[in-house]
Amino acid sequence: MKRLYFHRDSERGTKGTYDWLVEEVGELGEALEAGDRRAAEKEFADVIAWLASLANITEIDLEKAAINKYNGKCPKCEHSPCQCSF
Amino acid sequence: MKRLYFHRDSERGTKGTYDWLVEEVGELGEALEAGDRRAAEKEFADVIAWLASLANITEIDLEKAAINKYNGKCPKCEHSPCQCSF
Repeated sequence: MKRLYFHRDSERGTKGTYDWLVEEVGELGEALEAGDRRAAEKEFADVIAWLASLANITEIDLEKAAINKYNGKCPKCEHSPCQCSF
Repeated sequence: MKRLYFHRDSERGTKGTYDWLVEEVGELGEALEAGDRRAAEKEFADVIAWLASLANITEIDLEKAAINKYNGKCPKCEHSPCQCSF
């Protein structure tokens, strides 16, 4: 994603890229509500892509962030599977 | 994520899990706007986690969906880096 889009994402800036992410999350919601599996798959891909773009321009390593927080156990109850009572 | 949370995510259902995702995206936006890097990292992790949960309960393979659409080139212009004029 960085190689593909970084030059454009940098120009757009954090706020503009975040707004795109929000729009894609909305489209994912519509596809899921409509029960359109094919569309939902594409929207999942778009959300991941925009999230990766946003992480790139804020210089955060998305994969590392996820692994740091969710490394095989729930960060709240520390069990796997999670046993939180929420 | 599936091993950790699938039992809870299934009970919550697609709509409930989607609503959580939207909330986490909102929190990410707040952390970015505040320029709080540490909080932003955690919120990125949460968004990824909820996106993965949502993909699990809708039985969509998130990684496969992303690779199918963005396999090393832009799906619109088919160049890498992207050369779209948007």
